[in-house]
Amino acid sequence: MTHLPKRLLLGRALRSDRLAETLLPKRIALPVFASDPLSSVAYAPGEVLLVLSIAGISAYHFSPWIALAVVVLLFTVVASYRQNVRAYPSGGGDYEVATTNLGRRAGLTVASALLVDYVLTVAVSISSGVENLGSAVPFIVENKTLVAVITIVLLTLMNLRGVRESGKLFAIPTYCFVAGVFVMLAWGVIRGTVLGEEMRAPTADFEIRTEHTGGLAGFALAFLLLRAFSSGCAALTGVEAISNGVPAFRKPKSRNAATTLAMMGLIAAVMFCGIIVLALATDVKMAENPAKDLLIDGKPAGSGYAQNPVISQVAAAVFGDGTLPFIFLAAATALVLFLAANTAYNGFPLLGSILAQDRYLPRQLHTRGDRLAFSNGIVLLAGAAAILVVIYNADSTRLIQLYIVGVFVSFTLSQTGMVRHWNRLLSQESDQAARRRMHRSRTINAFGAFFTGLVLVVVLVTKFSHGAWVSLLGMLLFYAVMTAIRRHYDLVSEELVADDPDEKRVRPSRVHSIVLVSKTHKPTLRALAYAKLMRSDSLEALTISVDAQETAQLRREWEETGIDVPLKILDSPYREITRPVIDYVKRLRTENPRDLVSVYIPEYVVGRWYEQLLHNQSALRLKGRLLYTPGVMVTSVPWQLESSELARKRLRKRAEWNAPGAVRRGPAARPGTGRAGRNKSGGKPGGNGKPGGNGK
Amino acid sequence: MTHLPKRLLLGRALRSDRLAETLLPKRIALPVFASDPLSSVAYAPGEVLLVLSIAGISAYHFSPWIALAVVVLLFTVVASYRQNVRAYPSGGGDYEVATTNLGRRAGLTVASALLVDYVLTVAVSISSGVENLGSAVPFIVENKTLVAVITIVLLTLMNLRGVRESGKLFAIPTYCFVAGVFVMLAWGVIRGTVLGEEMRAPTADFEIRTEHTGGLAGFALAFLLLRAFSSGCAALTGVEAISNGVPAFRKPKSRNAATTLAMMGLIAAVMFCGIIVLALATDVKMAENPAKDLLIDGKPAGSGYAQNPVISQVAAAVFGDGTLPFIFLAAATALVLFLAANTAYNGFPLLGSILAQDRYLPRQLHTRGDRLAFSNGIVLLAGAAAILVVIYNADSTRLIQLYIVGVFVSFTLSQTGMVRHWNRLLSQESDQAARRRMHRSRTINAFGAFFTGLVLVVVLVTKFSHGAWVSLLGMLLFYAVMTAIRRHYDLVSEELVADDPDEKRVRPSRVHSIVLVSKTHKPTLRALAYAKLMRSDSLEALTISVDAQETAQLRREWEETGIDVPLKILDSPYREITRPVIDYVKRLRTENPRDLVSVYIPEYVVGRWYEQLLHNQSALRLKGRLLYTPGVMVTSVPWQLESSELARKRLRKRAEWNAPGAVRRGPAARPGTGRAGRNKSGGKPGGNGKPGGNGK
Repeated sequence: MTHLPKRLLLGRALRSDRLAETLLPKRIALPVFASDPLSSVAYAPGEVLLVLSIAGISAYHFSPWIALAVVVLLFTVVASYRQNVRAYPSGGGDYEVATTNLGRRAGLTVASALLVDYVLTVAVSISSGVENLGSAVPFIVENKTLVAVITIVLLTLMNLRGVRESGKLFAIPTYCFVAGVFVMLAWGVIRGTVLGEEMRAPTADFEIRTEHTGGLAGFALAFLLLRAFSSGCAALTGVEAISNGVPAFRKPKSRNAATTLAMMGLIAAVMFCGIIVLALATDVKMAENPAKDLLIDGKPAGSGYAQNPVISQVAAAVFGDGTLPFIFLAAATALVLFLAANTAYNGFPLLGSILAQDRYLPRQLHTRGDRLAFSNGIVLLAGAAAILVVIYNADSTRLIQLYIVGVFVSFTLSQTGMVRHWNRLLSQESDQAARRRMHRSRTINAFGAFFTGLVLVVVLVTKFSHGAWVSLLGMLLFYAVMTAIRRHYDLVSEELVADDPDEKRVRPSRVHSIVLVSKTHKPTLRALAYAKLMRSDSLEALTISVDAQETAQLRREWEETGIDVPLKILDSPYREITRPVIDYVKRLRTENPRDLVSVYIPEYVVGRWYEQLLHNQSALRLKGRLLYTPGVMVTSVPWQLESSELARKRLRKRAEWNAPGAVRRGPAARPGTGRAGRNKSGGKPGGNGKPGGNGK
Repeated sequence: MTHLPKRLLLGRALRSDRLAETLLPKRIALPVFASDPLSSVAYAPGEVLLVLSIAGISAYHFSPWIALAVVVLLFTVVASYRQNVRAYPSGGGDYEVATTNLGRRAGLTVASALLVDYVLTVAVSISSGVENLGSAVPFIVENKTLVAVITIVLLTLMNLRGVRESGKLFAIPTYCFVAGVFVMLAWGVIRGTVLGEEMRAPTADFEIRTEHTGGLAGFALAFLLLRAFSSGCAALTGVEAISNGVPAFRKPKSRNAATTLAMMGLIAAVMFCGIIVLALATDVKMAENPAKDLLIDGKPAGSGYAQNPVISQVAAAVFGDGTLPFIFLAAATALVLFLAANTAYNGFPLLGSILAQDRYLPRQLHTRGDRLAFSNGIVLLAGAAAILVVIYNADSTRLIQLYIVGVFVSFTLSQTGMVRHWNRLLSQESDQAARRRMHRSRTINAFGAFFTGLVLVVVLVTKFSHGAWVSLLGMLLFYAVMTAIRRHYDLVSEELVADDPDEKRVRPSRVHSIVLVSKTHKPTLRALAYAKLMRSDSLEALTISVDAQETAQLRREWEETGIDVPLKILDSPYREITRPVIDYVKRLRTENPRDLVSVYIPEYVVGRWYEQLLHNQSALRLKGRLLYTPGVMVTSVPWQLESSELARKRLRKRAEWNAPGAVRRGPAARPGTGRAGRNKSGGKPGGNGKPGGNGK
């Protein structure tokens, strides 16, 4: 009832609530999982042309062959991940596959690669999105870095404020984009072949300056082609997303996921090749350094020139610059790229929670749907992406150099892990039909591992000095931090093992309870009442006399109220609170080492942050100190001030926060589907797993 | 024993430890309390000349009259405060005097004025100190703002790290400074009169340009003289310090304090007048805008010219520029000015603690010797001072315009309060001798109130547009914030009054205890053992199943270990911890509204900040949420990890922190000297009030 205004305002929330409970049909799963890989055709074709231009415009004729190689690699990877999807219907991502089959180190390497990858997904997608938007609105491309950073900030705020992933919302721009590109391709083919019209890109009349006027040859050419191929591989980023999301699919989950993967691969391949072919047909010119190497009427374009993405140049050629379809496609492209960035906002904290569960990250992050963990992850991701965007001036071409390393590290290790997986299964399986299937799967994965491994080497060799070292450094950093955290947890866990059963002998015998008192107001009376109910062996009230008058009044009130708990008064000439209490507790412990001391502290619960500054600080500090005194329990007896109602409402609202990536992950396993962990006692099961179903 | 290395390193610490236990003789009390008022003669005389120069060099002949007026005012204020000291031997500062006699609002006004004043003491003293140092080392004056900010930072770090106030350390530079000035005055008089030598200041041959070539007359002249007088009043800042420090004096405290006040007044008056007279004799030229109005060989000095303080110009004339005594005096002047700034570092948090006791500031600041409160105060003070220094380019002349308002607000209100004080006493006193003394005191205070009030008006009128409005704004801000804090505390206190004795009827009846469990390790076993000892009505262990395998293992271990507490397992499909617990507790409360729930949370105690990030976060968050659920107690059962020893040592070291202003305040009242608050129980008195006497 309290959420009526919110519901009126954001009607959609209700819908996505329901959506989170349902499984995704293929037509929704495709856009949900494919915005990242599909959107990469917005920049990948351009990167190929751009690298080839180094050898001069004549080298463009290699581009279809490179596109072919990329498509072959894409199909290989898709085929490989179709095996993953079948083998790990629980949604085992690359991290799980690598950890299970290759061990902790491989898993951690994959995790580091993926974390770096998420950061770069944001940086590259947003930069490219801004460039695409800029092809329609020049102002944007003139202030590229600023617009990109603003977009990151907006996306971050959106995610922090709690925009829920919504399958349908994802579907619209993705299908618009795909439809737009297909219409463009079709119309381009019709105009070019059926109508026989000549289509010319805005850069068709430009020339490319090259230092290799005679064209490259031999090793130099081979290296350049490999570099172009590496850049084209940017089209493969995000392919692995579906393998994380199998539980979100409708049944039969694995088959539907595999089909969706194939569909995605096919669509991406057609778009990628189509754009390259149309780019050649419309004479698109792309230069690595357009300011210097792109000649307009024989003169360099200069630093003021902004090179539009291939997809927008092709659209300009096919639809005409500034026409409605052109603007529609530019907007759809930008939108799908921003959506792709948004998937990283969901994936990054999600992976973080899995890593936290394996104790590579602080344990408190292990709650998948936790808002705090989610927020920390988002801020970290956005900060890193923003830094990259600023350093690289939101230049997608330069950012892509960093991008592909992480992707292929995880591809290669995941596929290698799958080969091990099949080996292990083969050693146990005797059924011939099953063995045949496994052999086939193993072959596919082995080829995938080999091919992606080869590409990884190519990428490392061709891109290392162009920026790939930055990614490697980032991976190393993540790896080192996570290893250190894991080691710390392992050490602590060793320290805590309850190895010695004889410890029980020195069990404490009695409990001496102390209620801290400053006034005889309601919180104090409540704390006293609670402490009395606990029936410890002895109970006294303790007050620190920092002001003689106040203490005298307290004592008077104590006697008037007739409280039957003895009041002990400690003098504190320096008006300290903490030290006298600590000293007193220590003395009690020294006098009776086998006794426990239980300290009750009345605590105010307030609603506003500045109220927190005005209350409880002494209590908190005292509590902090008491923790270091062995044999002491500290009990907070909260008193809810009226303003605490505000905070309670705020907390309840936060509790309705949906888990990050809820749609992509599918609903959580129902109680009972787990291997163990039923509610042992009779009553209703606690925590029914329904987010937002809390409270009245 | 553990402090041996520290003692070897900082031998002085021991000495100041002992010092804090002893009372100050007058010869130490004088430098301790007087570094601020004495050091102000380093800038006040210059300010008088500088303002007069606006009317041309001929106006300099008014300066002795202005000096005389300042000295009369100084003696008036000293005489007035000698009454304060006698009437309030407990060390009632202006704030206490104003609050007691004029009410809360007047007290708060004084407090706001004093807080602003402390900030300006730092800004002005350090700027002037840098200028004095700069007269010997040109590099310093060329980078005045930078050096001033660095000095503030150093002073801040020193105070944050825990440099103890030491009477002897204070005495050396103050006596050096006083001796240096007196030697200079004596030598100047001897050279000028006995030896008949002509002494010429470095600026003696310069001319002062003025727009009033014919000299000012009438109202304009009167206004200028008043402005010059206002500036000269800077010499009075800090006079009130002794009245705060009466308890630090040896007996008879009041008389000794009064004598010290008189000595200080006399020394300051002699130095102030002497410097002005010698400045006239040596033809010192000071201009308000030296770059424009100071003519060297008929041409303006230009922006590169740095005008040296009068005291250093006189020293140059008397001793010779760059001679050893000249450098010695410059260094002593700078040092005593930095000491003056340091007194603000002690006074600001001290006043804060008094205000906190009266609930105008967060309660946790009320411990005088508390390090946290002290640190917050210091950082606030240093930040504000640094901002002023940067805004005003460390120009002491411009900062002084802001300075004097606050001082005279508190002078006037304090003296008015004293008049009320005597009126009240007179209405009760019948002894004629006593009444005569009171009448005399009242006359002195009334004259003091009238005179300082008049000066306040003069200062406001002549300086308002020159910067006094900034001080007023600062005071208003402090006033508003403190009023708001007090109102909040009053509201809460009303809310908490235990007014209804019938509330006892709905007392809770039974306690249901829950121990949160994740593993069967030592912390868990300890929490279980403790909870069992508390003998609540029912006890169960609760675990949240976020990982089915781990839960199964926990259940197995539970049975193997033979723990006789039932284990309840709650499923949490979204891997949440907080929500299932909250829901469960709420359900318990709904089912049995009269029952209390006591939740035991095992908590790790760690030693390093980053370890804190890796542990307890879930527990802390759960605790935070449970506080909002009525009828719940939350008990932390700490488990000290090995690394916690580090933190314990750190905390113990911090506990030895000496109170700010310990020397100036005198030792705290011994237990027993207070009006009430003896240790009621038999045993040793807890918290013996000896700082540093904690632990083994």
